Amino acid sequence: MKTYWSERARRITPYTAGEQPRDADMIKLNTNENPYPPSPLAIAAIEDFHMDKLRLYPNASSEVLRRAAAYVHGLSPEQVFCGNGSDEVLAIAFQAFFDDALSFCDISYSFYPVWAEMYGISYETVPLREDFTVPAEAFYGKKNIVLANPNAPTSLAQSRDEIEEIVRRASGVVIVDEAYVAFGAQTALPLIKKYDNLLVVRTFSKSHGLAGLRVGYAMGHPDLIAAMNCIKDSFNSYPVDALAQRAAAAALMDTSYAENIAKLIIHAREYTEGALKALGFQVLPAMANFVFAKPPAGISAQEMMQKLKKRHIYVRWFSGARVREYLRISIGTMRQMEQMAAVVREILETV
Amino acid sequence: MKTYWSERARRITPYTAGEQPRDADMIKLNTNENPYPPSPLAIAAIEDFHMDKLRLYPNASSEVLRRAAAYVHGLSPEQVFCGNGSDEVLAIAFQAFFDDALSFCDISYSFYPVWAEMYGISYETVPLREDFTVPAEAFYGKKNIVLANPNAPTSLAQSRDEIEEIVRRASGVVIVDEAYVAFGAQTALPLIKKYDNLLVVRTFSKSHGLAGLRVGYAMGHPDLIAAMNCIKDSFNSYPVDALAQRAAAAALMDTSYAENIAKLIIHAREYTEGALKALGFQVLPAMANFVFAKPPAGISAQEMMQKLKKRHIYVRWFSGARVREYLRISIGTMRQMEQMAAVVREILETV
Repeated sequence: MKTYWSERARRITPYTAGEQPRDADMIKLNTNENPYPPSPLAIAAIEDFHMDKLRLYPNASSEVLRRAAAYVHGLSPEQVFCGNGSDEVLAIAFQAFFDDALSFCDISYSFYPVWAEMYGISYETVPLREDFTVPAEAFYGKKNIVLANPNAPTSLAQSRDEIEEIVRRASGVVIVDEAYVAFGAQTALPLIKKYDNLLVVRTFSKSHGLAGLRVGYAMGHPDLIAAMNCIKDSFNSYPVDALAQRAAAAALMDTSYAENIAKLIIHAREYTEGALKALGFQVLPAMANFVFAKPPAGISAQEMMQKLKKRHIYVRWFSGARVREYLRISIGTMRQMEQMAAVVREILETV
Repeated sequence: MKTYWSERARRITPYTAGEQPRDADMIKLNTNENPYPPSPLAIAAIEDFHMDKLRLYPNASSEVLRRAAAYVHGLSPEQVFCGNGSDEVLAIAFQAFFDDALSFCDISYSFYPVWAEMYGISYETVPLREDFTVPAEAFYGKKNIVLANPNAPTSLAQSRDEIEEIVRRASGVVIVDEAYVAFGAQTALPLIKKYDNLLVVRTFSKSHGLAGLRVGYAMGHPDLIAAMNCIKDSFNSYPVDALAQRAAAAALMDTSYAENIAKLIIHAREYTEGALKALGFQVLPAMANFVFAKPPAGISAQEMMQKLKKRHIYVRWFSGARVREYLRISIGTMRQMEQMAAVVREILETV
C-alpha cells in the first residue's frame, strides 16, 4: 500500500541480513558469528550488575567502555565513539563525514550503498581486480572512502602500508571497517596518530562473541569523534544500554581470551581451506572468520548452498554478478567444519 | 576545528539530555526515571538468559517482544515495531513518514525539532495556550503531526476524543508519543483500529523502570510498521539486543507490577502537588511522572534549581522563554518527595 510512506522510505532498498533460521540441529555458518561464547568476564559483568539500576539511563557516551577501549588500544577516551553495533557506528560516521564523492569497492559490505542512498550521499564503486583483490591505486586522491579490511565477502586483507597510502592521498575521511581484523590481518589503528582523516571501526560481534549485545566502536582524531557525537545526539542520546557497556568493556579487557578464540578460529579456517581445496574448491586466501570458496565444476554455488541447507548446514550465497559462483562460509569449531566438509563430500559424490 | 564534518553535522544543533550527575547521595528528579526497579520477571529474564547465546545475533525484528506487546494490547505482531529506546523509534518514524508539513507544539519534547532538522523535514510549531494546554483546533487539517500526550515538560494530558478529532482531520500521519501515558492519561491506542494514519509510541524507560536497557515500541497499521521496518533495515538490522528483548517482554507481561508502581508514583505526585502548593508554588494539573511547577515570588526557578542542586537534589530547568519560570520535577518515592519538599521549604525560608 505505502499510503503514508515518506519519499525516503519509498526510494530506499533496505539491506538484507543473513537468515536467522530456527533449526535446533543446525550448523550455522551464514552470518560470521563466533562459535565460542563471550569472555567469562563479560558474562560475569552482566551477572554482577545491580539490576535495580536498570531503572536509570545508561551513561550517554558509554564512558566505561570508551575508557576500556582507550586503555587496550593506547588511546585517549576522546578518540573513541561507541554505538549500538558497528552498523550504527558506520551509519553515524556516514552522516558525520560524507556529503558526496564517496568511493568504495563494488564487492564489499552491501550495507555501504544502502547508507549512501539513505543519507543522500553520491558515490561511485571501484571494481575489485579479477582475483578479488583491492586495486589500491584506484582510490588514490579520492575524497571520501570506506574500505572493509579484511574485505567481505572475499575474506582478503590489505596491508597497512597499502591502507596508509590511500589515507595519505585522500582529501576527505577514510573509514576502515575492521569487523574481521582479529583473524590475522594488519590493523590500521597505529595510523590514527598520524592522520586526522582516518576512522577505524570495530565490532564486538565477530571477535568477542557478543553479536547478541549490539556493540561497536570507532577510533580516530577527537574532531572526528566530536562530529559523530553531534550526529548521535541529534538521533538517540543513549545508544548503548547499561549491560552492554559493562559486558563489552569486560570483554575488551580480556585480551588473552579474545586472542585464544581467534587462534582456534584461524586453526579451523586453515583446516577448512585445506579440506575444501582437497574437494576441488577454489578458496581465496582468507584473513577473516570466514572463507570465500567456489565449488568444483558440476554444481553451482547456489545449488550447494541449498543442498547444505537441507542437511541443516547454513552458509551464505550472494546473487551478485561476480560473486554468485562463490559461497561465504563462516568458520565455526573444528568439529563443525569437519561435519561441514563431510557433508560437502557427500553432496559432491551425488552430483 | 570541524575539518572533516559533513554539512549535516555542521548544520545541526543536537538535543541536550538531562544531566546524569555522579553524586552518591543525590535525589535524582531531573530525567523522569522510575524510582522503582524493573519487574522481578524482567530481572529473572536476564538472569535466566543462556549467556553463551550472546554470541549469536538477536532476532532482527524483536519477535518475542512484539508478540508480548501484541498480546498485552490486543493487537497482532504486524502492528508493532520495536527499537533501541523510544527516541530511536521516533527518529525512525520521522524518517518513515515525514517529508514536509510537520506540526508540533512550541513547548513539547525538545527532540522533535532536532529530528525534523536532522532529516530535512520542514515544520511549524503551534503555540500552547497561555495555560499551557494544547489548542487542539489549531491542529485540525494539518498534514503530519507529532504530539506528546501527556505533554512534556508541562505534564498536561489531552483526552482521547480530542486526539481522535486531530487524527480524523489529518491528511498525513499523527504520532502520539505516550512516554508518560501510564500515570493517569487516556491512551489513543484503541484508535489505531479505526485510523490507518495513527502511530502510538511507548517506552520502557518511564513506566517499566528500564531506562538503562533502551527499549521502545510503536503501534499502528501494518503499512505504517512496514515503512518503519524499511527505514530500520536501511540503518541497523538488529537494533534491540537479545537481553533487552527478553527483559522488556517479561516487564510488559507483568502488567500488575507496572500498574502497582504507577499507583505509588501517582500517590507521591498528589502529595508533591499539595506540598508545593502549600509552599506557594503554582503547579499544573499533572498526568505524568513529573510535575511542572512555578516557585513563589522571591526566587526564580533557575535559582531554586541551583539551590536544590547544592543540596544534592536534581530537578530540571529549561531556559526557553515561556518555561523558564517553571521547574520540571520528576516524581520519586514518597520519602524522596518529602525530603525534596522539606529542602524547598528551607530554601524559601532563607530568601
